[in-house]
Amino acid sequence: MNIQQYMADVGRQARAASRAMARATSGEKNAALGAIAAALRAHRSAILDANQRDLARGRDNGLEPALLDRLELTPARFDGMVEGLEQVVALADPVGAITDLNFRPSGIQVGKMRVPLGVIGIIYESRPNVTIDAAALCLKSGNAAILRGGSEAIDSNQAIAECLRAGLREAGLPDTAVQVIETTDRAAVGELISHPEFVDVIVPRGGKGLIERISAEARVPVIKHLDGNCHVYIDADADPAKALKVAYNAKTQRYGTCNTLETLLVHAGIAERVLPELADQYRQAGVELRGCERVRKLLGDQVAEATEADWEEEYLAPVLAIRMVDDLDQAMDHIHRYSSGHTESIITENYSHARRFLAEVDSSSVMVNASTRFADGFEYGLGAEIGISTDKLHARGPVGLEGLTSQKWVVFGDGHVRQ
Amino acid sequence: MNIQQYMADVGRQARAASRAMARATSGEKNAALGAIAAALRAHRSAILDANQRDLARGRDNGLEPALLDRLELTPARFDGMVEGLEQVVALADPVGAITDLNFRPSGIQVGKMRVPLGVIGIIYESRPNVTIDAAALCLKSGNAAILRGGSEAIDSNQAIAECLRAGLREAGLPDTAVQVIETTDRAAVGELISHPEFVDVIVPRGGKGLIERISAEARVPVIKHLDGNCHVYIDADADPAKALKVAYNAKTQRYGTCNTLETLLVHAGIAERVLPELADQYRQAGVELRGCERVRKLLGDQVAEATEADWEEEYLAPVLAIRMVDDLDQAMDHIHRYSSGHTESIITENYSHARRFLAEVDSSSVMVNASTRFADGFEYGLGAEIGISTDKLHARGPVGLEGLTSQKWVVFGDGHVRQ
Repeated sequence: MNIQQYMADVGRQARAASRAMARATSGEKNAALGAIAAALRAHRSAILDANQRDLARGRDNGLEPALLDRLELTPARFDGMVEGLEQVVALADPVGAITDLNFRPSGIQVGKMRVPLGVIGIIYESRPNVTIDAAALCLKSGNAAILRGGSEAIDSNQAIAECLRAGLREAGLPDTAVQVIETTDRAAVGELISHPEFVDVIVPRGGKGLIERISAEARVPVIKHLDGNCHVYIDADADPAKALKVAYNAKTQRYGTCNTLETLLVHAGIAERVLPELADQYRQAGVELRGCERVRKLLGDQVAEATEADWEEEYLAPVLAIRMVDDLDQAMDHIHRYSSGHTESIITENYSHARRFLAEVDSSSVMVNASTRFADGFEYGLGAEIGISTDKLHARGPVGLEGLTSQKWVVFGDGHVRQ
Repeated sequence: MNIQQYMADVGRQARAASRAMARATSGEKNAALGAIAAALRAHRSAILDANQRDLARGRDNGLEPALLDRLELTPARFDGMVEGLEQVVALADPVGAITDLNFRPSGIQVGKMRVPLGVIGIIYESRPNVTIDAAALCLKSGNAAILRGGSEAIDSNQAIAECLRAGLREAGLPDTAVQVIETTDRAAVGELISHPEFVDVIVPRGGKGLIERISAEARVPVIKHLDGNCHVYIDADADPAKALKVAYNAKTQRYGTCNTLETLLVHAGIAERVLPELADQYRQAGVELRGCERVRKLLGDQVAEATEADWEEEYLAPVLAIRMVDDLDQAMDHIHRYSSGHTESIITENYSHARRFLAEVDSSSVMVNASTRFADGFEYGLGAEIGISTDKLHARGPVGLEGLTSQKWVVFGDGHVRQ
């Protein structure tokens, strides 16, 4: 297979399909999603069989247990995946909405219409459920999609791809509107990210290394989801009960997610009142603590010494760094220096401190008296998300259907000309 | 001068200043703009003298008359430039606006807050007025700016830069919030576009070649303003009077602007009724016509033969390509193939055709019965613009203050944790 030729064909087909998708009605797009769900259910055993082949090959190739787990489609996961697809049917269609339509002094009426981006390329790991999630969000937002999943999931993905094509055809939409790359050749990724004439935006989903590499090499804009080195700052004027509750939840509710707390900042004036109890709770949950000198002085030797690397790290594990600070500015300076710009929360009853933290902390989500774990498309009401952007341009924070669209200006006149 | 070191210093200072700018109040920012205007007025003759030195050097170096014209600050232009700066004071400050603030089932309250992008790098030609325009828009939107103007304007720009610094200091803002690069070394541009740690977005203003080169090499996101190959389509159901008025205005009101009509598409069913009269008007205005075979058959040999290159070209001159089409789909296919995605307009009284054209034409501005010349930040009510984006991501069409900002999610809780 000539990869360049193959990817150019895929790209051209996607570009052509994107025009049909852009004018598809909400009814047609929903019909396609429904038909895809039906096709997936009808081919359930074939897809699970394909997944078993992927798993067997993965085991033979010595794939790590964590990766095998992500690769696996259990019957329950399969059903959840199809239900997720059907939930996208219920989401409002963002395409075509016209906002800010106003008359100008010249007499023209100017507004903005929400429109699809065009062709979205998604590069992800060996998680077959992402194939469905990504396809559903791209279709609903009127885009064409080119999906490149991890090579270990190739059989699962191809089995799912057949259902995608069948559902699209049944709804009268081009079955090239979602294309799943049929080769495991890595050169396909290089091609996918190099042709702005075929692809409007790349959404990489995976580890930081993958995303940094793609961002560095891409000739197409990238919506990045980098790491989540999230902070909670317990202000001097915090309500201790809220501080305990939020700081505990933000760290322990789930360890492996990007919105999990990684460094806790505590004002020196409240440290004695909250830290010992909080440290007990963390220890009972099995969280390893690493503190600055002042924190260790307060909590004793059970707390390991935090080094510069601890302030920088996204643990994604039951480990927490803790630092004592003297005021809000020191807390914000720490965040400014070490945060990855994902999510930060202040715990305070002080009106002015809350306002300053909200205004001055430059992260995709900034919270007051709430757990960082809320930074999520479902919790924010987007219905679904394709990722959480740590970029500032275009889409920031959880990216749902709207993040996969753009706006164009529309002008209504009546023979108006410029003077 | 070590360019790398110099640009890293500039970058670090800009990044530091961006934090102060992000928290600056509207009052402080407006005070700085006012103080800059006063400083410019106070140093009027020094700036005009510096501009005379640039002009003299330009003439010695054989600069083309058109470039010398753009470089020149006549007293009238100078005054217009300062007035433009003062108009930015009157614009609403986009920063801090919170929208879509709603309670979620979990009890948290989620919204979006508009925030500055951070540091904006602007690369432009030898037009000293752009130094003021760009500085004013970046300051008002709470950003720090690094300005790199054309080397021919170096003396003018440095004289203006002194006033920028003085005005910022007077308002109590860091005078590094707007930095004008002090070297004409081209390596400075390479540095400016290569450091995402210092610069959040690059806005190149200039010819297509400059913008394509910067886009290809930049490691920082670029808001692009490429060419404007704009179309007007006269539908079979057009009101002939409106068609004549709009098509004439779109071509002749100004020739050198990006929103000027470059290819006119005319439905075969109305061509005889509008084209001969329109062609007469164009000819009287001195516009050279180049047509497809059917247009030449109708209008005669005075119309030159249009080649493939004519459909692709942005003339920026009194030249117009004309093509006859058989229906709306043919017109949209032509636009899809040749348009640069800037601005297209349909002239029609047909409701369904207007709706289809609006929905399906994928350009930054899509119009019905209005001249393409309206595609402009002032006409759209943005107050001012830093350029017109032909990108789909982040900012599309005229880019005003809002295009120089981003949004972050804000969450208000009361000790809320995720279950």
